[in-house]
Amino acid sequence: MAADIEWIDDGGVTSPGGWKAGAVYAAVKSYGEEPRFDLGVLASDVPCTVAGVFTRNAIVGPSVSLTRERVGGGIAQAIVANSGISNTATGEQGMRDALRMTELAGQLTGIATEHMLVGSTGVIGWPLPMDLIEPAIPTIEFSAGGGANFARAIMTTDTVAKQRAARVTIEGVTYTVGGTAKGSGMIHPDMATCFCFLTTDAPADRRWLQGTLKAVADVSINMVDIDMDTSTSDTMLVLANGTAGGDAIDAAHPAAGPLHQLMEAVAIELARELARDGEGAETLVEVVVEGAASREDARVAARTVSSSPLVKTMVTGRDPNWGRLLMAVGRSGAEVVEQTISVWIGDHCTLERGTPTDVDLAEVSKAMDSDEVQIRIDLGRGDDSAIAWGCDLTTEYVHINADYTT
Amino acid sequence: MAADIEWIDDGGVTSPGGWKAGAVYAAVKSYGEEPRFDLGVLASDVPCTVAGVFTRNAIVGPSVSLTRERVGGGIAQAIVANSGISNTATGEQGMRDALRMTELAGQLTGIATEHMLVGSTGVIGWPLPMDLIEPAIPTIEFSAGGGANFARAIMTTDTVAKQRAARVTIEGVTYTVGGTAKGSGMIHPDMATCFCFLTTDAPADRRWLQGTLKAVADVSINMVDIDMDTSTSDTMLVLANGTAGGDAIDAAHPAAGPLHQLMEAVAIELARELARDGEGAETLVEVVVEGAASREDARVAARTVSSSPLVKTMVTGRDPNWGRLLMAVGRSGAEVVEQTISVWIGDHCTLERGTPTDVDLAEVSKAMDSDEVQIRIDLGRGDDSAIAWGCDLTTEYVHINADYTT
Repeated sequence: MAADIEWIDDGGVTSPGGWKAGAVYAAVKSYGEEPRFDLGVLASDVPCTVAGVFTRNAIVGPSVSLTRERVGGGIAQAIVANSGISNTATGEQGMRDALRMTELAGQLTGIATEHMLVGSTGVIGWPLPMDLIEPAIPTIEFSAGGGANFARAIMTTDTVAKQRAARVTIEGVTYTVGGTAKGSGMIHPDMATCFCFLTTDAPADRRWLQGTLKAVADVSINMVDIDMDTSTSDTMLVLANGTAGGDAIDAAHPAAGPLHQLMEAVAIELARELARDGEGAETLVEVVVEGAASREDARVAARTVSSSPLVKTMVTGRDPNWGRLLMAVGRSGAEVVEQTISVWIGDHCTLERGTPTDVDLAEVSKAMDSDEVQIRIDLGRGDDSAIAWGCDLTTEYVHINADYTT
Repeated sequence: MAADIEWIDDGGVTSPGGWKAGAVYAAVKSYGEEPRFDLGVLASDVPCTVAGVFTRNAIVGPSVSLTRERVGGGIAQAIVANSGISNTATGEQGMRDALRMTELAGQLTGIATEHMLVGSTGVIGWPLPMDLIEPAIPTIEFSAGGGANFARAIMTTDTVAKQRAARVTIEGVTYTVGGTAKGSGMIHPDMATCFCFLTTDAPADRRWLQGTLKAVADVSINMVDIDMDTSTSDTMLVLANGTAGGDAIDAAHPAAGPLHQLMEAVAIELARELARDGEGAETLVEVVVEGAASREDARVAARTVSSSPLVKTMVTGRDPNWGRLLMAVGRSGAEVVEQTISVWIGDHCTLERGTPTDVDLAEVSKAMDSDEVQIRIDLGRGDDSAIAWGCDLTTEYVHINADYTT
């Protein structure tokens, strides 16, 4: 049953009860529009149940290692994060710097250091400029608009800050989930990094929260692909502070389903914003794969299509080359048989069970001239489906990633 | 022991004895520079032992199906090929057209239809214009320069025809291998397709030839990556007509090693040319991975690095962002540990066993300003190695693949 989700205008990580945030500009990154922020703290009034999903890259930075270790402890209360430098490939100095950031943020907030998480995104291989960060952390002020400032502080080549919040009411208790994400952009000389931080005032059982976050990640952040590269810093976290009251939510709790849906809705909105704001992107591409023989088939087919450079450039050129879609599902590894595949671009069916339709391709091209294009592929092999999000590939992507030289 | 390979100036598929070729312009494709060819026949004077390696895409065109079936018979004598239209996603009509092309080419050459192979590359989903192809095939004339014309006839967005030939002499018998390949370009509204056709005058045992071709493909064509997409038409063939004389070469034959090396040398040269001529490419990128725990690790790491958009744009921008190389090997699935990785860009070591060196990055950038950049990564986990080839990602790639609209 679909929960009755109410979106909060301009909501973000501080929309749930008991959350505050603030940010400063410490000059770790030397770009960005006003107001400039590159260092922020997001904190709960009380300790939270925490869950996390991390990059699968074999190489991770010390900040990720430290956060992963502390999430393993099951309790956290705050996140200190910076953009500009990712603190990856920085060895033992990097771990000392990550620890120091959490110490300073702990002193600022009065929160135990071991309950302070840390995230860094930006240049790889450079040490954090602790001479800039050390004096800046104590100056962070918490404010009502702090959530929006925090969202700005984690941006790298993102062109807009990304935040969302929504709530549901179950048996008289209102639960709110807020979130912010930063994208899938790379900065000189950086790599794609994705952060997605969710906050809630719901009380949550730790095991349930971890399982739910994993399920949410799999249909949201993990289905976004800008350029197939996997960052060494990708991190998704949820912190549940319980200030909404009531029993800890686990699978048997009446709010379990609605809260799962609420987290999923917020995370999917953030995922779509990440794709829409991919480097150089002008068009959000939503790829729906239906009729797959298994959920895994649907997922891999949708992701392969959404990440294919030939599909991306086909969207850039508003060219309804459904042949490229066939090629992409064909190489995806999913069970496909040409004779059962149907393809839609927007509302136009271009291939019906393996046979090209006589659709007017000029009309399809016209329909693609939008800031959002949906591609739907029915594999005709079963009942499973998945949705992935990507973006077009423009010359601007190449400029952003090539036109800076050391 | 390395065979004494002698390269043949301007050599190609008709350099080995007993081979002839010719091509015409049938107007299947409506672009290209003079002299224009889009339909060619490559034929041996006598039946050949044949081996083939085909696309792993689950969707293949009728031309590939027919060729694969006939290669399975073990004997072939000729190839008829066209560019402009790939004859994929064309259903039963596509199979009739493929059969008809081999019939007509058989009539032209006096070769049994079942020994005639066929390759088509170009637009997907459009039927072959048999009204153009039928009258054109009988007009093909074989000539001394036919190999070069055939090489031109299979080009799509390739900017140069690709051909090579070389020979070795073993115990008084000279064996020659010629080859042509077409690239990794896409045309409106097409996809990347790779053809690599090798000819030889060596006599060959069928089982040995198939095993050798597979091994050769794995270190040449299968290590080229332009944009990660896999065509529905990729085809690599070798036809051995035996006119050089002597016993059929199998694993026990003294020429087995040298002929394997000869095929490998020709195929690697063609693979490098494919990468160098990738769509929009200005720079050939050679990625050498050493010190891998297994051959498969070395291969996947080299391919992941060479195909990463972030690595490709780093080369475009002559930016020695070795962090992107770490990221790519980290996500490749190969066994990697940050502390044992060393990285070289050209001759410059930028990372030594996990520690950044104090190399002058401006110097490294200067060294990258070349039409060929070598990246070398020592994983420090074992003794296996592999080489992959790719190219930079330029705005021209985006233009080629996006700036045509239906």
